[in-house]
Amino acid sequence: MIQVGIIGAGRIGQVHARSILTGVPNANIRAIADPYMSESAEAMAKGFGIEHIYRDYRRILDDRKIDAVLVCSSTDTHSKLSIEAIEAGKHVFCEKPIDHDLAKIDAVEAALKAAKKPLKYQVGFNRRFDHNFRALKKAVDDGKVGDVQFVRVSSRDPEPPPAGYVKSSGGLFLDMMIHDLDMIRFLSGSEVEEVYALGAVLIDPEIGKEGDVDTATVSARMANGALALIDNSRKAVYGYDQRAEVFGSKGSVQNANDLPSTAVLSTVDGVTAEKPLWFFLERYMTSYQDEVRSFIDCIEKDTEPEVGVNDGRMTIRIGLACKKSLAEHRPVRIDEI
Amino acid sequence: MIQVGIIGAGRIGQVHARSILTGVPNANIRAIADPYMSESAEAMAKGFGIEHIYRDYRRILDDRKIDAVLVCSSTDTHSKLSIEAIEAGKHVFCEKPIDHDLAKIDAVEAALKAAKKPLKYQVGFNRRFDHNFRALKKAVDDGKVGDVQFVRVSSRDPEPPPAGYVKSSGGLFLDMMIHDLDMIRFLSGSEVEEVYALGAVLIDPEIGKEGDVDTATVSARMANGALALIDNSRKAVYGYDQRAEVFGSKGSVQNANDLPSTAVLSTVDGVTAEKPLWFFLERYMTSYQDEVRSFIDCIEKDTEPEVGVNDGRMTIRIGLACKKSLAEHRPVRIDEI
Amino acid sequence: MIQVGIIGAGRIGQVHARSILTGVPNANIRAIADPYMSESAEAMAKGFGIEHIYRDYRRILDDRKIDAVLVCSSTDTHSKLSIEAIEAGKHVFCEKPIDHDLAKIDAVEAALKAAKKPLKYQVGFNRRFDHNFRALKKAVDDGKVGDVQFVRVSSRDPEPPPAGYVKSSGGLFLDMMIHDLDMIRFLSGSEVEEVYALGAVLIDPEIGKEGDVDTATVSARMANGALALIDNSRKAVYGYDQRAEVFGSKGSVQNANDLPSTAVLSTVDGVTAEKPLWFFLERYMTSYQDEVRSFIDCIEKDTEPEVGVNDGRMTIRIGLACKKSLAEHRPVRIDEI
Amino acid sequence: MIQVGIIGAGRIGQVHARSILTGVPNANIRAIADPYMSESAEAMAKGFGIEHIYRDYRRILDDRKIDAVLVCSSTDTHSKLSIEAIEAGKHVFCEKPIDHDLAKIDAVEAALKAAKKPLKYQVGFNRRFDHNFRALKKAVDDGKVGDVQFVRVSSRDPEPPPAGYVKSSGGLFLDMMIHDLDMIRFLSGSEVEEVYALGAVLIDPEIGKEGDVDTATVSARMANGALALIDNSRKAVYGYDQRAEVFGSKGSVQNANDLPSTAVLSTVDGVTAEKPLWFFLERYMTSYQDEVRSFIDCIEKDTEPEVGVNDGRMTIRIGLACKKSLAEHRPVRIDEI
Repeated sequence: MIQVGIIGAGRIGQVHARSILTGVPNANIRAIADPYMSESAEAMAKGFGIEHIYRDYRRILDDRKIDAVLVCSSTDTHSKLSIEAIEAGKHVFCEKPIDHDLAKIDAVEAALKAAKKPLKYQVGFNRRFDHNFRALKKAVDDGKVGDVQFVRVSSRDPEPPPAGYVKSSGGLFLDMMIHDLDMIRFLSGSEVEEVYALGAVLIDPEIGKEGDVDTATVSARMANGALALIDNSRKAVYGYDQRAEVFGSKGSVQNANDLPSTAVLSTVDGVTAEKPLWFFLERYMTSYQDEVRSFIDCIEKDTEPEVGVNDGRMTIRIGLACKKSLAEHRPVRIDEI
Repeated sequence: MIQVGIIGAGRIGQVHARSILTGVPNANIRAIADPYMSESAEAMAKGFGIEHIYRDYRRILDDRKIDAVLVCSSTDTHSKLSIEAIEAGKHVFCEKPIDHDLAKIDAVEAALKAAKKPLKYQVGFNRRFDHNFRALKKAVDDGKVGDVQFVRVSSRDPEPPPAGYVKSSGGLFLDMMIHDLDMIRFLSGSEVEEVYALGAVLIDPEIGKEGDVDTATVSARMANGALALIDNSRKAVYGYDQRAEVFGSKGSVQNANDLPSTAVLSTVDGVTAEKPLWFFLERYMTSYQDEVRSFIDCIEKDTEPEVGVNDGRMTIRIGLACKKSLAEHRPVRIDEI
Repeated sequence: MIQVGIIGAGRIGQVHARSILTGVPNANIRAIADPYMSESAEAMAKGFGIEHIYRDYRRILDDRKIDAVLVCSSTDTHSKLSIEAIEAGKHVFCEKPIDHDLAKIDAVEAALKAAKKPLKYQVGFNRRFDHNFRALKKAVDDGKVGDVQFVRVSSRDPEPPPAGYVKSSGGLFLDMMIHDLDMIRFLSGSEVEEVYALGAVLIDPEIGKEGDVDTATVSARMANGALALIDNSRKAVYGYDQRAEVFGSKGSVQNANDLPSTAVLSTVDGVTAEKPLWFFLERYMTSYQDEVRSFIDCIEKDTEPEVGVNDGRMTIRIGLACKKSLAEHRPVRIDEI
Repeated sequence: MIQVGIIGAGRIGQVHARSILTGVPNANIRAIADPYMSESAEAMAKGFGIEHIYRDYRRILDDRKIDAVLVCSSTDTHSKLSIEAIEAGKHVFCEKPIDHDLAKIDAVEAALKAAKKPLKYQVGFNRRFDHNFRALKKAVDDGKVGDVQFVRVSSRDPEPPPAGYVKSSGGLFLDMMIHDLDMIRFLSGSEVEEVYALGAVLIDPEIGKEGDVDTATVSARMANGALALIDNSRKAVYGYDQRAEVFGSKGSVQNANDLPSTAVLSTVDGVTAEKPLWFFLERYMTSYQDEVRSFIDCIEKDTEPEVGVNDGRMTIRIGLACKKSLAEHRPVRIDEI
């Protein structure tokens, strides 16, 4: 039984706690810590039967019985806490992004290399564990698509964040498209070499005032010669739109949205199916459980996590390249970053 | 917190135990009992942290702290254990069928009426809680279909049971179609008045030797004037096929199978989607949780269960009418049974 | 070039005229006749460049240059005109039904046998030539479905006929379901042995006053052991609903409705596709052309038509058996008719 | 009745001839001319009852009874023949492209302006008349999508042309993507301002040797602020893939491929639908008829053609901008061309 400590009892921390309790039988949550532990979070933790509830995360790092730490704190603390946990000899599952600053990601990697015993480090790109995207990847890996020639990702949120959020989040390319940038790497099995970004403010002018865009596309060239296209919108009124296609020499595989039910109503007004599941918590809940289960299994079986520190760094580099491309109005090579 | 005892630690008992632990926060499994408690079942129960593990179910009935009992034992004990649990003052969730003998179902109802305090009694027609069928029901209840004129249910298993099973199960009409007979009642909001059954042995001659059929259709006339058609097969090679349609004066609503993913592969061989989820445990797992959650909520909020003893009796009556129709080669009214 | 005469310049006569002109290059319409030739029909015929326009159909039968006759007159004249055309040495394409009176159908067959030279005789079951139904048939013939175990046909009109129509048409089983009765024969590759019909008046009470039903189902047992289910409604508010499924030991094949376009609109109200093509003229126009092309090819290549006089008779027998089943409230064998 | 002359009796000339004969009742083909009139073309023309069959197209221009000319000759003669026909006072339907040389397109426009009487001039962007694309356009025009924010077009051929073809065709951006460049203008209701093209040789190295690409994407910014993405491949092994999506403030509308039938086969291998219609002649046949019908109606009713000389010029300018973008590896504004 792997003993787990969770740092951060906010929304995603609670998601992981519930995931472990309901679907990761070989892990036990021994402690959860949050400096601003809310009443509801504390009630949740108690309801889940979590033994130790702390305000100071260091009590988790100091607990020798704890094997692994889930870093679910605010983004600006991810790299620092990762390093401290690694130095305390803990395996780490870190929510994305590790950091917006590449030097800090490098420091995490250095800490991993310097660790006295080999430690597992996984980054929270949960969509890699989603059934619909995994099915595309499997088709590619099974050779059904042949040589990958083209990857397309459509990723649209049902509603924009408050304009204030994009100030600290790094903006659309770093807080939203980052998942899609990882997805084209995952699905093509290749690295991004160059990107060209277009962006526009078509939804919320306040987002524009913060210097960000709310609608964007990226064209990318991959190292293996494949091309990729991504489109993002902060507001799809019909709900969270999450689709991808991989096209190759032997065929094409694409997925569609998950729906609340398969019911279809035919009336004088048309033939109407349900809208997609509303947002990421509804849509990707199972993938959150699957990524943590996979992380725990890596510890137990001593295998490598599917998404490591390098994936965390590459996506940030590509996201920064996209921002540069938009700002300078030209294609940008990733090795410029 | 409702305290629950589970009688029967076989497959479905374990399903309910897991359901409660992972998704019914207002219930606690205080005890589980099985005269033939297997090692794996006992390990499961311990892993789930269930306090009391018994061989004798009477210890559950005698436990004053237990509010509700889940009857998950073999079919021939359902009515007897239901009555004993009722007499012990427990709310009862009973797996379907209550009994094949209508007199025994009546005895359960009599016990309920005789109980000193009002008790909840729910029968395990889990499909009523399934998202795809509930979406049809909601469309009907919301008036989107108008007056129901026609209901169609296709229900096909991926593989036939051993021929020996149909001897004790009551055969296709009672062990398999019973869900569909309940479904046409549920979706039409009306009772079945008369049925006409066709049956054939097209899959496994051994099933025929046991006096049962493996392929069957039923035409039914409902009390509200609607017609209904059901088709059953013991073997759909492409997997568990579970679909229905409700057609009415304002439109039609139908559902489709749930799939492992939405991925679709286009190659020189065609455009291929995934097969349906394999069988009932894969397909209906969420509905098992939802029916138990609903049962617990009924206790907590003192409301009536959605599927009661009358539903358990009516479906058996209809199933027996189907058998009679097939045997006598004529339409049979339910009030003949 | 096969020379064709058309008897009957009403709607279906005009459909066939247009079909030949636009898509049957090896046929020429030499004459069209109608005792009540309307102005619009005459204008159409002239616009199509049809050489001879008659009121008396006998002028077509007397024309030695005419090889084939299309009988598109009123239903009650089909058998009489068929026989006269056969006696005049013409190949005959006869709109369905040949007659409601089996003796008259037998007389047509006798005329064919007595003809001095072998003549082609085709009945207008156009749906056998429709791309969606032909695709099912091809899957069955190619062995993809294995042994056929079950056939299902849903066939629903967008609006009911005037109640007066059902008086002369023979009612739902003979004017509407007749296509579906032929379809289960076509798709299963077997004859119907017995039927059980349910019917109801749920749409138009006037239809009930004429002694007919507007909603009906039929359960059938086929000679090869397969079962079949048909449902009919005179009014599907969302449009003409034309679907079938063939289920067998190796799989199942089903079709869906044809739509005006593949466009799908996603909004806050749902994900909405187009309604089916409105009614038979929109939906089956191509099949009308294909059946006539096939008939002309049979003449040219001296092969047998795909739908002959026996198919015309069998469907009437089954339709009459359905009426008897509904009237007598019992299953009826076809050999009772 | 509009009298039509067709110049060019090759594949597309024959398509238009057949279209007019079978579905444009207010037009008559009076003459067809081709300097290399093949035997099969001549037989076709005779079979169609076309009165005059010439080798010299000038006999069509000299025929005072001819109102309109369809220019279906080789691409390099389109602008020259357009001008001659205009000068002869004929309305002109010209196959795309008018010319690769913008000056020659300007000359056509100048000829139109100089004509003594107003003449109709339509360019053969047939996809604007296709039911699936027209349905998208209608949803946009009806306001169902709201403000257009994003347009996506996937357009993939089933097999690449001979490498020699791309030498004279202008390459992928001018012979293939030109339709899609017009489509994003049509669907967005706005002009393209700037494009960025990526291209790769992933299918046929011979195409690369000719200096062309066989796989390409274009990102575009439209004048109304919307973004657009196009992907093209010369070889989709599953067949002709023709899809688009328009996304906006009120929703999104997308279409799917047309299939030979709606049949879907479920077996142990999966649930398989048909592949798309093979190539443009199968897929777009109806649109060829509809565009010519629309052209003839414009003449009859004196309305403006839906696709005029400006559309012909703009698409060439955008195509040339794409080529320049690929060559210079930078975004290119259309007004640079």
